[in-house]
Amino acid sequence: MTTQTLSPTTRSTIRRGKERAQADRSALYAVLDAGLICHLAFVAGPGAGAPVVIPTGYGRDGDTLYVHGSTGAASLRAAAAGAEVCVNVTLLDGIVYSRAVFHHSVNYRSATVHGVARQLTDRDAKLAALAVITNHLAPGSWDYAREPSKQELAKTAVLALDLGEAAVKVRTGPPVEDADDLVPERNGETWAGVLPLCHTWGEPLPCPELPRDVEVPGHVTARPGPYRQETRDSDG
Amino acid sequence: MTTQTLSPTTRSTIRRGKERAQADRSALYAVLDAGLICHLAFVAGPGAGAPVVIPTGYGRDGDTLYVHGSTGAASLRAAAAGAEVCVNVTLLDGIVYSRAVFHHSVNYRSATVHGVARQLTDRDAKLAALAVITNHLAPGSWDYAREPSKQELAKTAVLALDLGEAAVKVRTGPPVEDADDLVPERNGETWAGVLPLCHTWGEPLPCPELPRDVEVPGHVTARPGPYRQETRDSDG
Repeated sequence: MTTQTLSPTTRSTIRRGKERAQADRSALYAVLDAGLICHLAFVAGPGAGAPVVIPTGYGRDGDTLYVHGSTGAASLRAAAAGAEVCVNVTLLDGIVYSRAVFHHSVNYRSATVHGVARQLTDRDAKLAALAVITNHLAPGSWDYAREPSKQELAKTAVLALDLGEAAVKVRTGPPVEDADDLVPERNGETWAGVLPLCHTWGEPLPCPELPRDVEVPGHVTARPGPYRQETRDSDG
Repeated sequence: MTTQTLSPTTRSTIRRGKERAQADRSALYAVLDAGLICHLAFVAGPGAGAPVVIPTGYGRDGDTLYVHGSTGAASLRAAAAGAEVCVNVTLLDGIVYSRAVFHHSVNYRSATVHGVARQLTDRDAKLAALAVITNHLAPGSWDYAREPSKQELAKTAVLALDLGEAAVKVRTGPPVEDADDLVPERNGETWAGVLPLCHTWGEPLPCPELPRDVEVPGHVTARPGPYRQETRDSDG
């Protein structure tokens, strides 16, 4: 784990909820590595266009974030044209129930990256980035499944975004309450706490075309990471 | 369930993956009602500013989407100033493993809304919208927890966004494969299929300040909706 400090700029400096800001790069890496999809925002249209946000797959290698898409996709064309983009990855960990409506909240881990994306054109660089993206959503699949053909590679645009300008916010723990709301005579009977949200992998569903004797490979059954969590069912 | 058709404009017309586009409003409502948080994108700064995307809570009432935040938040100020915003809600349902890296995908439900948000100023309208937002993330909490004080209400900005310009995309089912990749001699031993991602509520964690005899209320333990799913554990 590195402890390099995130270098905030004006727009990546967290003003609301400063106590939830994380200042080291390992926190950024942890959120990006734990997420599955990102939300990519860009400005569409000429001049002062309108914002667009789309969900998409991604992967991280060091201080570079990669996203990919069809070369025909408007989003990729816009982002590849040297325009500013913004990427957010958020994991929702639970609902925070307070004694007051105003203090209801959520527990979460969130990373935001600002920058200008560059399109990869070198074949080896594209393949390396696609391996990162593929293994992020489906660890082990890059070496297991058929590699992209020349034609498939030509249809795929890959963007690289530097992680230099980024911010991380994390909220954990119980509700924050007004002192007045903790007076027993007022709220002694009001439940407050956190309802955790758990993300778990289900039973793999084989493709209908698959021969019956093909077993689910280890890289699918044994997926590591935060999405394999114990649920209330396994607590008994 | 209504079957009113979504009215696409140029930017809300889905060009990539048209077969995944849904054309009725009930599909839009279903995705928005099943999601928990949204991603709100806006353009920050004067003139041709840069895109920003933030995760935030929301709620839907009819054909209006509500989001809220602190009146001091830059995002709310930008969006409230009559500028264009874009909101996306995505539920990730599984990872699609193909016999080819190129055809790896995800199963998902995704709704995107474009429009100009308006800030609510009327007290009753704000309270009604906050009830919708609160009950979306924490059903039942609006009537159970202490209502907002005058001061708390003044600190809260609420934006309303019309759902008139929206698009929905859904992917379900097994991988789509090239015919060549289904030849048994080539890929007869390669597993392909879907690894479902399940979202389940964990055991409620009481606030440490809570008296021991306060039971978890029914609106917390019995949360309905798609996030209460059966996991592999309960399938035996």
